[in-house]
Amino acid sequence: MKTPTHPIEVQPGRSISHLTEGLLATGFQGRKLGEAVEVWAKMLREKQNIIWLGLAGAMVPAGMRKVISYLIKRRMIDVLVSTGANLYHDLHEARGKRHYVGSHLVDDVKLRKHYVDRIYDVFADETEFYRTDLWIEKEFCPHLSDMYRYSSREIIYELGKFLDSWGAEKDSIILSAYHSGVPVFCPALNDSSLGFSLMFANRRRGRRIILDSLKDVDESSRITEVAGTTSVVYIGGGVPKNFIQQTAVIAGYQTRHDRSHKYALQISMDAPMWGGLSGCTFEEAQSWGKIDLRAKKVMCYADATIALPIVAHALGEKFKKLRRDVPVFEWGRNGTLTIKYEKRSL
Amino acid sequence: MKTPTHPIEVQPGRSISHLTEGLLATGFQGRKLGEAVEVWAKMLREKQNIIWLGLAGAMVPAGMRKVISYLIKRRMIDVLVSTGANLYHDLHEARGKRHYVGSHLVDDVKLRKHYVDRIYDVFADETEFYRTDLWIEKEFCPHLSDMYRYSSREIIYELGKFLDSWGAEKDSIILSAYHSGVPVFCPALNDSSLGFSLMFANRRRGRRIILDSLKDVDESSRITEVAGTTSVVYIGGGVPKNFIQQTAVIAGYQTRHDRSHKYALQISMDAPMWGGLSGCTFEEAQSWGKIDLRAKKVMCYADATIALPIVAHALGEKFKKLRRDVPVFEWGRNGTLTIKYEKRSL
Amino acid sequence: MKTPTHPIEVQPGRSISHLTEGLLATGFQGRKLGEAVEVWAKMLREKQNIIWLGLAGAMVPAGMRKVISYLIKRRMIDVLVSTGANLYHDLHEARGKRHYVGSHLVDDVKLRKHYVDRIYDVFADETEFYRTDLWIEKEFCPHLSDMYRYSSREIIYELGKFLDSWGAEKDSIILSAYHSGVPVFCPALNDSSLGFSLMFANRRRGRRIILDSLKDVDESSRITEVAGTTSVVYIGGGVPKNFIQQTAVIAGYQTRHDRSHKYALQISMDAPMWGGLSGCTFEEAQSWGKIDLRAKKVMCYADATIALPIVAHALGEKFKKLRRDVPVFEWGRNGTLTIKYEKRSL
Amino acid sequence: MKTPTHPIEVQPGRSISHLTEGLLATGFQGRKLGEAVEVWAKMLREKQNIIWLGLAGAMVPAGMRKVISYLIKRRMIDVLVSTGANLYHDLHEARGKRHYVGSHLVDDVKLRKHYVDRIYDVFADETEFYRTDLWIEKEFCPHLSDMYRYSSREIIYELGKFLDSWGAEKDSIILSAYHSGVPVFCPALNDSSLGFSLMFANRRRGRRIILDSLKDVDESSRITEVAGTTSVVYIGGGVPKNFIQQTAVIAGYQTRHDRSHKYALQISMDAPMWGGLSGCTFEEAQSWGKIDLRAKKVMCYADATIALPIVAHALGEKFKKLRRDVPVFEWGRNGTLTIKYEKRSL
Repeated sequence: MKTPTHPIEVQPGRSISHLTEGLLATGFQGRKLGEAVEVWAKMLREKQNIIWLGLAGAMVPAGMRKVISYLIKRRMIDVLVSTGANLYHDLHEARGKRHYVGSHLVDDVKLRKHYVDRIYDVFADETEFYRTDLWIEKEFCPHLSDMYRYSSREIIYELGKFLDSWGAEKDSIILSAYHSGVPVFCPALNDSSLGFSLMFANRRRGRRIILDSLKDVDESSRITEVAGTTSVVYIGGGVPKNFIQQTAVIAGYQTRHDRSHKYALQISMDAPMWGGLSGCTFEEAQSWGKIDLRAKKVMCYADATIALPIVAHALGEKFKKLRRDVPVFEWGRNGTLTIKYEKRSL
Repeated sequence: MKTPTHPIEVQPGRSISHLTEGLLATGFQGRKLGEAVEVWAKMLREKQNIIWLGLAGAMVPAGMRKVISYLIKRRMIDVLVSTGANLYHDLHEARGKRHYVGSHLVDDVKLRKHYVDRIYDVFADETEFYRTDLWIEKEFCPHLSDMYRYSSREIIYELGKFLDSWGAEKDSIILSAYHSGVPVFCPALNDSSLGFSLMFANRRRGRRIILDSLKDVDESSRITEVAGTTSVVYIGGGVPKNFIQQTAVIAGYQTRHDRSHKYALQISMDAPMWGGLSGCTFEEAQSWGKIDLRAKKVMCYADATIALPIVAHALGEKFKKLRRDVPVFEWGRNGTLTIKYEKRSL
Repeated sequence: MKTPTHPIEVQPGRSISHLTEGLLATGFQGRKLGEAVEVWAKMLREKQNIIWLGLAGAMVPAGMRKVISYLIKRRMIDVLVSTGANLYHDLHEARGKRHYVGSHLVDDVKLRKHYVDRIYDVFADETEFYRTDLWIEKEFCPHLSDMYRYSSREIIYELGKFLDSWGAEKDSIILSAYHSGVPVFCPALNDSSLGFSLMFANRRRGRRIILDSLKDVDESSRITEVAGTTSVVYIGGGVPKNFIQQTAVIAGYQTRHDRSHKYALQISMDAPMWGGLSGCTFEEAQSWGKIDLRAKKVMCYADATIALPIVAHALGEKFKKLRRDVPVFEWGRNGTLTIKYEKRSL
Repeated sequence: MKTPTHPIEVQPGRSISHLTEGLLATGFQGRKLGEAVEVWAKMLREKQNIIWLGLAGAMVPAGMRKVISYLIKRRMIDVLVSTGANLYHDLHEARGKRHYVGSHLVDDVKLRKHYVDRIYDVFADETEFYRTDLWIEKEFCPHLSDMYRYSSREIIYELGKFLDSWGAEKDSIILSAYHSGVPVFCPALNDSSLGFSLMFANRRRGRRIILDSLKDVDESSRITEVAGTTSVVYIGGGVPKNFIQQTAVIAGYQTRHDRSHKYALQISMDAPMWGGLSGCTFEEAQSWGKIDLRAKKVMCYADATIALPIVAHALGEKFKKLRRDVPVFEWGRNGTLTIKYEKRSL
């Protein structure tokens, strides 16, 4: 009861970061949005800190692709864990294909007849999707080896390399991650068009591509084991959130030390009362030792398509020049990982 | 399938209105936020158009008071329908009292022992609230007449007048509305500390103040009857939304013409599947003839403490000088209403 | 960590109360549903305990009318606070009119053309609604006096009396409450077709009916002042919840004693993070002194159309014969209230 | 506007299936719950129809384990797709370990100090979890082969076989599925304690267990390719929903025929406005060709811990003896699948 709230004032022309600072003295989710910027800023100022981003939901069809690639390029995140859909849709746009402004109030039977696929109020051309599927199967898969046990990270890395040579759109998430040295995990890659196109290469073209998903657990947990400290940013919940959370548990088992995440931010509409991991609070996560008992943490209940662009702009304004310890990941042949930190200005 | 989406780009330093324009080419609630600005802007450009604002939720404790008073002063709204709580908390701050930055993770039993009242993550001093209650009863009520059948609008007007003479904080919603000629209805004034303090004046001080709530229906519906066109903006749902919606039905009965609202915007977390009026879609409202079949309309699912400041800033930037037909309400003795429009620059 | 959960077993033919008992040993909202029955059962066993029911949402169109009248007739509740809409729709059905099984996936423009009003997936005939409006204005209003300051409770009581003489459907909420001596408050009666039809009697038929809504605050708070103990059941949030909650505050001011509610149950989809009173937790309410610090309390997040019938059946099974202290309300001319308790078997 | 709604009546002692039938004539999610039973009953009556169950959320800790095993044993479902967590927690209870009745209002810092892990209002003993992890690594993993490319289905099958020999609790989901010939897929097995314990067998014990997640896509899509018709039941959303949905797309590509699901039911709190697959409507899914344009379909917005036990009881009562075409899956060495249908009474 020491700090009075300050009603936010309308000041046309004010910057977005100035607005989020003003929101810190208000209440409810507005304040949480302000705190989201603060917590992320603290992550960026922490030494030898690795920032995980968990990305669920259909963020790329909803136009969030360049926000993610911005965060990657400016190394406001260090590791990405994504659903397959976001990577698939990124690849689709990287190939020059588009999503379309649609409506959520529409007759889906009619859409079906025109092979228009709907994602809430975004439309897509099913024929174009089919061509992207074939592109994966016929253009990309020849660059993968048979019988090698790939982690999803390695497959996405190969995809980034191929997109680079292919001349893809430069703000692609996959390509940006490739260029910036950001590992991308997709623990349920099989649960997407990207995954089933790889399967079709095996089934229809006699390939023997292996996606060894246990390798994903191994590699991802090593990051949290080896890191100085770790921070987590979750856009939505789903597999990416749990997958990142569990690295703290695994790394704890392995090292016999507390490896809980030290900063934590989630932007999601998933609420705790249904008991799912997507919506569980960071306090609940503390009971499991996934989040540090003294962590700076904030949950902001908002659609990410509103909150994420605001937070990214605010960070961009706060850190015109970002100077931080950027982790460089070096994966050994036997699955070992070394992380070096380079002081970079981004 | 003609308009491709355009991923929003992070451009530090860009204005808020530029951001909301960019969101128009994205998807999900981000796009709706962009559309919210567009629809409201259209309301402001429409001739002889009366803009209702329905205000529910604890918006004043959450620091939205100056956003509302800004909208009033710049006449981006013409009539306000509010819950009692928002007006009570506005009065509290108008008297120089404060709300405080608190936490939603707190032991409420301890708060009770310190007479700290919690509103999610905002705190308030119960003793100060009690003094505001007494102020209403002892300072304000003497300015009301016995046995006069007040509408809530008239009581709030008298309160505005008194606050003006008393020297209240100038960004008070009630005071701003008084100065700007914006009628304020509070259909459930009895459901608030403001209402019960009026009751205590009757019970404990021998007063006979009458709040005739049927008069509220009469007065409010006349606005929609007499208006050129009407537009609605709903922050949350609740009584304010239904009360404004029903003016279209009543005015329709009275005039035997379609008096449906022509522009409609709601920012709320109330969803349609529970069947309540708070969350019902504008499409559902069209079946009732409350919203015009060709209305420009948008529902944005977001916490208003995030969305409202953004929309208000974007409007403020879009309309550095707002020139519109400002309605001037003249209430006759017999309950009649005349509306004149003055072209003003605000 | 003493009580293990017990997975619920599927036992076809088991009773509903046996199911809710089984749910007590599970988790999440299933357990809360079980607890809801337990807490309500405790209310019924408490001596000289007055049970408030707050009823928001469109519960009557959704087919919950007979559940409410059952609760009234068996005196599982003692006072009802309702939105105007629920009472209006009850009146509509009491007059023999119906709501219809519709769909939420429908073209509202077409509905408009056929004067079909939609409430999510329930339809209604607008022409029939119009006749109910006129019935209120022309049939019922002649039974009200001019210039008498009615509370909403008094108006609903008069409506119950009239429905009784008129021969209404016996499971009407209004009629059941009239027969069972259950006071019904409607603090925002003006925010409904019931309210505006009273207004039309004034405007079009030269009547001077007064609905003095301050009287509602006075009468309702006296119940909590005079009661032995009080309990609250909230179906949804809205004005009914706040109105009942505030009686604890007012009664506390008046008596200078703690008058907080001792048992508390809410079934709602309103969540706390938006800061509104509808979704605020009972813990938050404890900070205000509205809910006792030792109260038995449970919030069950569920659509009431699912949870309420289950809870009512479970209570009906648990209390085949309910023997409790039934409060009898006697309102004096000067606004005073006396409550007597009669031990009845229901 | 032909079928009037019928208010549900409280009839203590009525059966659960009688209640859900009564709810069919009400509105909102109550009606949807009634429809959920109807749609599922139709699935059971359809010839040569394969019923997929997608299971997300922490359903086992919440006490839903025996409901799922009942559905498996009575072959009300034919294939299960689950999150790793549900299988892990099932295994934990199969080993005789328990979850505990806790509270969501608790100090998680204290829980941490006692190694109590919280899942909303359910507690668990972290030390017991750790022993289950070790049991997987040390007891179960020796039964898996090195360098064999397992699908998750094959691993879960092996686990079922081992649990059978080990003498596990008979209502285990994994064990019931093993006994009943129900394939269980876990597309993101790596995202769970089950997955990371397999990884530890590799890392710490020199094993070379391969979980080839592309094989999951292959096997699962073959089911929808070969099936007579397919139906889907989703408890929650997440990976299980998308994974089952995509089998329709893959099978369509493969067969060049429409392989969309013919019956569809979801019980979830995921809403469509956030654009994610978890909450997307079945109408949206029709635009993609995942759900048949004439499908019987219903989305019921409810916590599954409330809705699922009710639906299961109602089905159990409706089908005291269930006689249907039970699919028997025969997986060939080269990944081929044959399905035979046996008319069985269950």
